[in-house]
Amino acid sequence: MNNLFIKNTFLNGQNVDVLIKNNRFEKIEKNINLSSEESATIDVLDGKDTAILPTYFNGHTHAAMTCLRGYADDMELFKWLNEYIWPYEAKMTDEDIYLASQTAINEMIRTGTTFFSDMYWSPAETMKVIRQAGLRACVGLTFLDVTGEKTIQQLYDFAREQKELQTADSLIQFSLAPHAIYTVCEKNLIESKELARKLGMKYHIHVSETAQEVADCKMNHGGLTPVQYLDELGVLDENTICAHMVHLSDKDIEIVRDRKVVSVHNPCSNMKLSSGAMRVQDMIDAGCRVILGTDGASSNNNLCMREEMKFAALMAKLQYGPESVSAQTVFDMATRAGAMAFGIDAGRIEVGALADAQLVDLNNVLLQPMHNLISNMVYSADSSVVKHVICNGKLIY
Amino acid sequence: MNNLFIKNTFLNGQNVDVLIKNNRFEKIEKNINLSSEESATIDVLDGKDTAILPTYFNGHTHAAMTCLRGYADDMELFKWLNEYIWPYEAKMTDEDIYLASQTAINEMIRTGTTFFSDMYWSPAETMKVIRQAGLRACVGLTFLDVTGEKTIQQLYDFAREQKELQTADSLIQFSLAPHAIYTVCEKNLIESKELARKLGMKYHIHVSETAQEVADCKMNHGGLTPVQYLDELGVLDENTICAHMVHLSDKDIEIVRDRKVVSVHNPCSNMKLSSGAMRVQDMIDAGCRVILGTDGASSNNNLCMREEMKFAALMAKLQYGPESVSAQTVFDMATRAGAMAFGIDAGRIEVGALADAQLVDLNNVLLQPMHNLISNMVYSADSSVVKHVICNGKLIY
Repeated sequence: MNNLFIKNTFLNGQNVDVLIKNNRFEKIEKNINLSSEESATIDVLDGKDTAILPTYFNGHTHAAMTCLRGYADDMELFKWLNEYIWPYEAKMTDEDIYLASQTAINEMIRTGTTFFSDMYWSPAETMKVIRQAGLRACVGLTFLDVTGEKTIQQLYDFAREQKELQTADSLIQFSLAPHAIYTVCEKNLIESKELARKLGMKYHIHVSETAQEVADCKMNHGGLTPVQYLDELGVLDENTICAHMVHLSDKDIEIVRDRKVVSVHNPCSNMKLSSGAMRVQDMIDAGCRVILGTDGASSNNNLCMREEMKFAALMAKLQYGPESVSAQTVFDMATRAGAMAFGIDAGRIEVGALADAQLVDLNNVLLQPMHNLISNMVYSADSSVVKHVICNGKLIY
Repeated sequence: MNNLFIKNTFLNGQNVDVLIKNNRFEKIEKNINLSSEESATIDVLDGKDTAILPTYFNGHTHAAMTCLRGYADDMELFKWLNEYIWPYEAKMTDEDIYLASQTAINEMIRTGTTFFSDMYWSPAETMKVIRQAGLRACVGLTFLDVTGEKTIQQLYDFAREQKELQTADSLIQFSLAPHAIYTVCEKNLIESKELARKLGMKYHIHVSETAQEVADCKMNHGGLTPVQYLDELGVLDENTICAHMVHLSDKDIEIVRDRKVVSVHNPCSNMKLSSGAMRVQDMIDAGCRVILGTDGASSNNNLCMREEMKFAALMAKLQYGPESVSAQTVFDMATRAGAMAFGIDAGRIEVGALADAQLVDLNNVLLQPMHNLISNMVYSADSSVVKHVICNGKLIY
């Protein structure tokens, strides 16, 4: 039973107690009196001088790439991939992936994240760490054509096995994750989507990350952009998670809106690799579903959603003006919208919702003065404000 | 006497001991043996699992505006100034400025900064806090024409008094700080520069922050840009600190280079207020002196130079490509170049230099793995990595 009682924390301008029962927020009120039975069985957390806030939902990352943090920076994309990242990855063992996932998940929890949508090799290794740490994830079962037909079929078998093992209370869900349109052929793009639909899993893919990708796609697919090409293949729907989405045309934005596709904004990675700036305000205005992700630590170089929020807001202001993408907008993208995109009834501190929360230290200088807590969290805070993290009703930090 | 012995820290790939005597680095070697007299009189700091790095030099801020953190965000510049910032500031007392400076300086030290170049009202209040905290500063004596002739003359008198009181070992220096060309007339711009020259003080001014400022200047001053106008007034030299410098022409860049003007890059503030992006790579290529600043917490919204470095590097990559403004370049801007700009013999961990340093926690997950410490400090770290801060040989955090 994931029960917890938080005494005297701060929410929406007032002091409250928070009772979590069976992994959901049961009561959020001033001065809750526990029954003697409850008092005997429920752990109490002192919330004095803290505020309770939703945790972050990281829509796109490669957790195990944390072992590549700082390994290769400040260089052109293909030099970076061909001379540094891919040769390093070719030598990585399952144990490397396990250890790197530990570092990544440790960092994510410390920075207030309780869910991440991953895309990497050896998913079973990352899953071990996720279970040990007690956070949520959508584990991406990744492949490229060069992975080989046999390995792809084994990955599909792994997906079917995991579907069988799945229980209602599992914190882990899955995506089939073809890398991109330029590394996976039509047949494999379609087949993997069909399997994802059959198993009720997500479909996770990099789309329109660079201008080059769009130009190549147009040349190879009769003038279609990556979004239009994927739409023609019939793989775009509300369970499709498209990372980056930097170079979209007006027509692409309409398609993405109409298909209810989830677009993941990765501003740090897109800036650091000079990929470009997502048309985030245009997409929001059109009614697209936009969430936030950090990408991997090799192109960011951290997994901190707080920092990602600030980059998302400030990059939008440089593009569109100071009123675009407010602190509240970007905070919602990182919390509530992220949870909804993955069908998780969390991302908000409300009675009935799944109990994921961070308690932040109101005495931390980065949160002072407190004219506006959400503004402070987005524009000023860093990981030093995160005092406790709760996932699914359990204190995990 | 500011003496300190740091046992077993990490510098440039090896473990060293660091001996600080009379506020300078005296020895940096493996296994330093203290004499019995030294052992008896010098405080020892255990550097195990830390690296020693230079601290940050914040080239442009308004410390006391920290009381406005989160007070007004996500709005257009003149609405922000006219309806929120200026009315709030009009009500601020000396005590408010003292308390806000405390919050600001507390934040700066915790985030690894030991020097800031300030520009605000009631400098005596901020100076009290600087002295109590033991860090360095260049205190800006700020005015606008609307401040009134009498108050400006009092400020000049204050500058003369401070010059008299100045001792060789003072950690505080001063600048005459006319706010901007659109708020201070020619006569006052020139007079304050003459006084600054006479007293050996810096001259600190906002320049070319917005496109509007440049357009207005051209209209009012016969087609001259703000840089050209200030050059005509004769106020540009190596002791002139120009904040923002967003909208420079090629000719402006040449003037700034030739006059050895110090330009302060404030990427967060410039993005948040949609002011624009400094032509930072062009200025570096031309040989201009470019340093880094946070601006005030009301338009950033923190005073964290680590975060400012990441914004500077990533914004440049979006403008110029992934190879521009590397981690090392931006780290040097924030440390060594910042110190040099203010004539402070610090910003580097070397025998003979003034002993300003931060000890960072190598066990912190944001610094793992350690392929490249400078990359990790710029792209991954946050204030949680800062374990100790030393300024002028004294442990201040």
